[in-house]
Amino acid sequence: MYTHVLLRYGEIFLKGKNRSVFERRLLNNIEKMTGQRPRNIRSRLLLPYFEEHHLLKRVFGLVSYSLAVKTQQDIEEIKQAAVQLLKGKTGSFRVETQRSDKRFPLKSPEINSLVGKYIEENSDLRFGLKSPQTLNVEINQDGAFIFVDKVVCSGGLPTGVEGKVVLFLEEEASLLAGLLFMKRGTDIVPVSVKDRDINLLQKFSPRPLLLHMIKDASEIEDLAVKEKANIVVSGQNFEKYGRYEFSLPAMRPLIAYGDEDIKEQLSNFRQA
Amino acid sequence: MYTHVLLRYGEIFLKGKNRSVFERRLLNNIEKMTGQRPRNIRSRLLLPYFEEHHLLKRVFGLVSYSLAVKTQQDIEEIKQAAVQLLKGKTGSFRVETQRSDKRFPLKSPEINSLVGKYIEENSDLRFGLKSPQTLNVEINQDGAFIFVDKVVCSGGLPTGVEGKVVLFLEEEASLLAGLLFMKRGTDIVPVSVKDRDINLLQKFSPRPLLLHMIKDASEIEDLAVKEKANIVVSGQNFEKYGRYEFSLPAMRPLIAYGDEDIKEQLSNFRQA
Repeated sequence: MYTHVLLRYGEIFLKGKNRSVFERRLLNNIEKMTGQRPRNIRSRLLLPYFEEHHLLKRVFGLVSYSLAVKTQQDIEEIKQAAVQLLKGKTGSFRVETQRSDKRFPLKSPEINSLVGKYIEENSDLRFGLKSPQTLNVEINQDGAFIFVDKVVCSGGLPTGVEGKVVLFLEEEASLLAGLLFMKRGTDIVPVSVKDRDINLLQKFSPRPLLLHMIKDASEIEDLAVKEKANIVVSGQNFEKYGRYEFSLPAMRPLIAYGDEDIKEQLSNFRQA
Repeated sequence: MYTHVLLRYGEIFLKGKNRSVFERRLLNNIEKMTGQRPRNIRSRLLLPYFEEHHLLKRVFGLVSYSLAVKTQQDIEEIKQAAVQLLKGKTGSFRVETQRSDKRFPLKSPEINSLVGKYIEENSDLRFGLKSPQTLNVEINQDGAFIFVDKVVCSGGLPTGVEGKVVLFLEEEASLLAGLLFMKRGTDIVPVSVKDRDINLLQKFSPRPLLLHMIKDASEIEDLAVKEKANIVVSGQNFEKYGRYEFSLPAMRPLIAYGDEDIKEQLSNFRQA
């Protein structure tokens, strides 16, 4: 039934002049991680519907997405798509319209009212101004998009816009430290003194990751220079805090995390 | 109707030999912040019911609490308290019993069944094995405690068990950095080059906080020595990162936080 996926991104807007760099990176990351290249329509991204849409949850920078039905800019088609989308739902609903193409002859409140009435007449649902169930109509140059649910994504910034850091993998918590930095926009270079499973990092990375094996932490500095990274990220928290011998700044995003917080957040990332 | 408050704490158990120190600190903090001194009954804490129980949400180290009715160890009294507690509730319910005093003649499944039947006969509620609404019965040396809801508290470790840090207040985010460290068990010494509102920190602190005014960051080291703190905590995140000139280790718990995360968590603490 769905024909499209509507994607939303957030923080990029705050970045002023970097915005176009950020957007390009986000589009590239989406393409690398899902095989789909979105089109940009007015601060939204649009993809044709694809089976593997859950992969979008792993793309940092995306805030949410909705599976949508596209129709012509035609109120009758919109009504029918709306009823079809709400099939099987019960209780109350409301309608919210965003009309970015002002050539469409009906205004948003009129669309809400017409579509709402039609739904009431053709389903068991009842209109409720404050219902948590919303039927959304977005009318733009391309046509009309109708959708109900929002799938929450990871948020943050597109991985790669903020340069590169070395991730020192000392224990499982280091994986979370790496994910949090990828979410802040940095690429990561994972290094470890022993073999580690980095699949969880790979799941969220737009580029293939390679684990760099080192004999001890003293090699980190040379590696960082070679990789053009000038920061080391580690998974240490306050209770496990120890100073490092390398002179690069060490960042410890988990410094105020308890063991329970770490376990919980890792498990959230594993489920995405 | 309520006669008592049952308090639960979490991470303290993991601390092995420090446990008694941690427990004592938690009891002292609760007393300082609520004016009530709990009794310790088998890994739970107990207080007589008091109006201002919402203050418990600000005590780091507490995981949750429940408002409870205490009765004699008598199945008829338990039944009646259960029905009274569920008054006004509809839908389904289940019963969960914890019998730590094995002298009580009925076993937990029998109690569940007897209380469950009585509730069904004396209310509109229906028994459901997996209902999210749980009527809890705890039977211990003291008597029987009956309760329904759990109020979630802040968790973490009791403020003060992990020593003292200097909190460098450079901006609003620094307040969150301070709260996260108080939650990891450290006392804080707030310092700033200009006047700041530290009411939010005070709300969660068992001891009165004083803002130390300094002319510039170079004074932090002397102050830290005087206050017997050897770590500085700041609110810098990755985008605002700058090196400090003092030689004490600087911890930046917000290093991987976005502005939205900071705003959201600050607002959660403000509401507690």
